[in-house]
Amino acid sequence: MKATVITIGDEILIGQTIDTNSAWIGQKFNELGVQLHEIISCGDSSEQIVDALNRAKSTSKIVLLTGGLGPTKDDLTKKTLVEYFNTELVLNEEVWERMKQIFEKRGKEVLEMNRSQAMIPKDGTMLPNMRGTAQGTWFERDGVVFVSLPGVPHEMKHVMEAQVLPRLREKFDFPKIVHATLMTAGAGESVIAGKLSDFEAQLPANIKLAYLPELGVVKLRLTGSGDTDDIKAAVEEQKQKIKTRLGDLVYAEGEEKLEVTIGKLLLEQKATVSCAESCTGGFVSHLFTSVPGSSKYFEGSVISYSYDIKEKLLGVNNTTLNTVGAVSHECVAEMLSGLLLRSGTTYGIAVSGIAGPDGGTPDKPVGTVWIAVGTNEKQVIRRFQFFPSRMENIRVFAHAALNMLRLFMLGKLQ
Amino acid sequence: MKATVITIGDEILIGQTIDTNSAWIGQKFNELGVQLHEIISCGDSSEQIVDALNRAKSTSKIVLLTGGLGPTKDDLTKKTLVEYFNTELVLNEEVWERMKQIFEKRGKEVLEMNRSQAMIPKDGTMLPNMRGTAQGTWFERDGVVFVSLPGVPHEMKHVMEAQVLPRLREKFDFPKIVHATLMTAGAGESVIAGKLSDFEAQLPANIKLAYLPELGVVKLRLTGSGDTDDIKAAVEEQKQKIKTRLGDLVYAEGEEKLEVTIGKLLLEQKATVSCAESCTGGFVSHLFTSVPGSSKYFEGSVISYSYDIKEKLLGVNNTTLNTVGAVSHECVAEMLSGLLLRSGTTYGIAVSGIAGPDGGTPDKPVGTVWIAVGTNEKQVIRRFQFFPSRMENIRVFAHAALNMLRLFMLGKLQ
Repeated sequence: MKATVITIGDEILIGQTIDTNSAWIGQKFNELGVQLHEIISCGDSSEQIVDALNRAKSTSKIVLLTGGLGPTKDDLTKKTLVEYFNTELVLNEEVWERMKQIFEKRGKEVLEMNRSQAMIPKDGTMLPNMRGTAQGTWFERDGVVFVSLPGVPHEMKHVMEAQVLPRLREKFDFPKIVHATLMTAGAGESVIAGKLSDFEAQLPANIKLAYLPELGVVKLRLTGSGDTDDIKAAVEEQKQKIKTRLGDLVYAEGEEKLEVTIGKLLLEQKATVSCAESCTGGFVSHLFTSVPGSSKYFEGSVISYSYDIKEKLLGVNNTTLNTVGAVSHECVAEMLSGLLLRSGTTYGIAVSGIAGPDGGTPDKPVGTVWIAVGTNEKQVIRRFQFFPSRMENIRVFAHAALNMLRLFMLGKLQ
Repeated sequence: MKATVITIGDEILIGQTIDTNSAWIGQKFNELGVQLHEIISCGDSSEQIVDALNRAKSTSKIVLLTGGLGPTKDDLTKKTLVEYFNTELVLNEEVWERMKQIFEKRGKEVLEMNRSQAMIPKDGTMLPNMRGTAQGTWFERDGVVFVSLPGVPHEMKHVMEAQVLPRLREKFDFPKIVHATLMTAGAGESVIAGKLSDFEAQLPANIKLAYLPELGVVKLRLTGSGDTDDIKAAVEEQKQKIKTRLGDLVYAEGEEKLEVTIGKLLLEQKATVSCAESCTGGFVSHLFTSVPGSSKYFEGSVISYSYDIKEKLLGVNNTTLNTVGAVSHECVAEMLSGLLLRSGTTYGIAVSGIAGPDGGTPDKPVGTVWIAVGTNEKQVIRRFQFFPSRMENIRVFAHAALNMLRLFMLGKLQ
């Protein structure tokens, strides 16, 4: 079972937009047991879209198009598909009503231009997009499924998950593929691979292990394929072996963000948390608050970027800042105790480091970070050394801080 | 002058790697005046690579391949190219010596496997890669240039800049293509398109306008092509027309993030800023601090997620919270004045809203946000109504807050 993804938009070809949609779709197809044969990125041109469609259907049973569904003149996908499938556009009252309501709620007037987005190809199945105004469409021709999706990533993902993946599962009989995922934090890909090298050697031929490193965490995915029902049990058995081998490095089974795992721990313990962030500049708080329902345990933070705010809002000693500096054991200790005093939360996190590109010294190069976690009773403080790039550091520092809190909460950090 | 990029590697198709190379190459080609016609991502398969090469040469004068040059069995690009061009591999002594030196420096032994990477196609021109062991190759056949490049991004960029771009400039006489970008905030794509509909109608045929919406901002790109030097002036003239038409919606010329523009404004005014964030949970602070050098103007923030922190760390009145609630004109006013009192910064931003998915009421549905910006002397407060999705809201709320601060700083917000 092969698929082709066609991403449409001049912005991709001139490099203004990095195509992240294809990788996400590739992952989903891979999990489903569909082989993504090719990704074609072409411009906003009917001729190119038609050419890509013709090629795609010659190799693939599933053809997914993203992008080119906006209300403006340079969005040609829908028009091209209507011609390609020899159909016509009709106003979909349901979509039009929903669109009017969306605009009304926002206190804005719906424009005639938006009406074109409620026009749906007659011979296709409309795939509702509840996150935006560009609707998806599903066509079937000669046993090939063609799906047109919005290009905005969160809208595309929504339509894929709510509409496309369930419909594909219903239509096709996919091969039996079983996945198991373990989430790890606290070690890089090569350290983990080192710990698992002889484990990998003993894996049966029909079970594969993939390392999927992200900034701050490494995802491990076991994929088993086979005709029998035993494959599920076999994959589960291998997963347990990895868990035993990696111990505390594993923070969750199944796809789960570190901040979600910690949120669950906090709820279980009926505990609350707050942060004192310097170099991470709000990113730890952002990770906490990106989880729906986090207001049940996340109380707030002080982002103390300047010395002044560290003193005024956290009570860090002026002497500490002027002797050992803000990136020090002493400073994060004072940030944490000052934070807990003011916030009154069960747990606290304090982070101070040098994200870069400037600010490094021979003693404290860019990538140095001090992290303190703990309660009023007990604090644990560590120094880490990470990478040379600012955005990478902000993310990795934040994950290191979250992981320290996790281990502390589990009583695993002395 | 058209080009095709072929990115090779199963890791792209199963979504383990996001292809960032193509976007970078697209930008470089665009600057050069080369139109990137298509990006094809295919697997590590000779058949697929040959198929992609055949298609590419039928439309393009330049065909760039990235990836598949590693030392392992699944790297098939070089082998495939040697067969495709009916040539053979010969050991390049210079490359082999350099490779041995690299391994020696790293204290590692060079493997026989690596010797294969010093084997260069006889009929091609070797493009030295000083950052790694996978060399580039340049072939010419029937007026088409084929270039094979390493897949590791920083190695690919190095060979492109040191070898490929200079050689392309020498070989071809590129047409003149001029781009101009305007960044807007404060209105969605369709509102802007509405304001520009008659402007678009009067655009000369050789100048095109593209709308590139991101969460919170809309980028506008004019692209002019032509044989004369006048095209630069013509594009500039159209850009000025858009600027006049859109007024304060335009926040920058050229590709620039809103937080960068505001950082520049703050530096110009020798001013500082701090934030009081509720529903955005640190995201506004994260945007500020993602800019290198932001410590010059960003002092810090209070993330006041709970009522308790709003009271304790910002001095919001308990009565306000218990009568009109946290998502109110009164609350953001008190958050802002409490923040400025404590932080001592020139400007402040206060945000309180309902990001969702829960917490909405008929009066204050999910997507409602109150934003206050100002100084000790003057505050401006607005209510906005955005979307139903949490992550979208966090981003859009944050951009709305930044944009209000921008307009306030420019004296455009009453």
